[in-house]
Amino acid sequence: MKKSLGAKTITYPTPVFVVGAYDSEGNPNVMTAAWGGICCSVPPCIAISLREATYTYHNIMDSKAFTISIPSEEHVKEADYFGIASGKDVNKFQATGLSPVKSEVVNAPYVGEFPFVIECELLQSVKIGLHTQFIGEIKDVKVDESFADEDSLIEKIKPLIYSPDNLSYYGIGKMVGKAFSVGKELNKK
Amino acid sequence: MKKSLGAKTITYPTPVFVVGAYDSEGNPNVMTAAWGGICCSVPPCIAISLREATYTYHNIMDSKAFTISIPSEEHVKEADYFGIASGKDVNKFQATGLSPVKSEVVNAPYVGEFPFVIECELLQSVKIGLHTQFIGEIKDVKVDESFADEDSLIEKIKPLIYSPDNLSYYGIGKMVGKAFSVGKELNKK
Repeated sequence: MKKSLGAKTITYPTPVFVVGAYDSEGNPNVMTAAWGGICCSVPPCIAISLREATYTYHNIMDSKAFTISIPSEEHVKEADYFGIASGKDVNKFQATGLSPVKSEVVNAPYVGEFPFVIECELLQSVKIGLHTQFIGEIKDVKVDESFADEDSLIEKIKPLIYSPDNLSYYGIGKMVGKAFSVGKELNKK
Repeated sequence: MKKSLGAKTITYPTPVFVVGAYDSEGNPNVMTAAWGGICCSVPPCIAISLREATYTYHNIMDSKAFTISIPSEEHVKEADYFGIASGKDVNKFQATGLSPVKSEVVNAPYVGEFPFVIECELLQSVKIGLHTQFIGEIKDVKVDESFADEDSLIEKIKPLIYSPDNLSYYGIGKMVGKAFSVGKELNKK
């Protein structure tokens, strides 16, 4: 039997996306967003949802580009801070000591110290309600050079996972199976 | 320094969503989708992206409703199978022995044995490219009754995480920090 929790925005896993964009004066800024995910294979696209009240919302509307930097477990403090402070009030890169890096492929900055980066051009925006969804066409993804030849990037990157019900961040656990493989035996029945 | 991997659909974490819908004859069907995530807080919405070639695409277009059942680590075989087989060819519930449960709030079935369920009415569909995004308004979320009073649902649910680069499923790891909390000390600088 199941128990109702109400019409809540809870799902597992939820990402910790650090979204980078330039403001109207060309200053690099980032904010943390948990609402998003890959949304198309061809063209390769990823969606993030932002409230109009955020600085980044307007920055992306103006610059038509954004990045997503994926923080490691070791960056949990900075990733959380990027979701608390606003670029309207403070330079978040200065406050954390992290480095803004100008993307070579899109007009947006990313976090140099974070191990994985997705660089996007804005394809379309979809107003849903409180949040507007920005669909970005992925122009490149980049990983720290030291991990680039690894078989299991996720185990090196150690991405954060957000848990909406208890407002907590988790790490990645162990591999539990190979996709398009472990279920094959059921296919033969 | 970062190394380019090309314009690929890789991000971390990526979910393992088992999407349920009725076909035109009222038969329950599910398929596994990795492209999606929460996309709005008010109204509460979640997005999933499907190719037009799938059975579920047409089922949702017709029925205007879907569920997302979140599998546990223990259901990795069934979750993978639901992404391999097509409801055009086979009754996936019969093949796995899992139970279709008719939602009481939307016109769609979910997987009774999976610990967490999101019940949605179709709010809008957005054609992006190969994939079309279905934005569902969340009408209820439900959890196994035995977990309902737990503080950290994610640790009981043990959701699967998909890793696109090495085509593997992972479990959840340890809690590494509290959100809107661990970053506060940087806010005071």
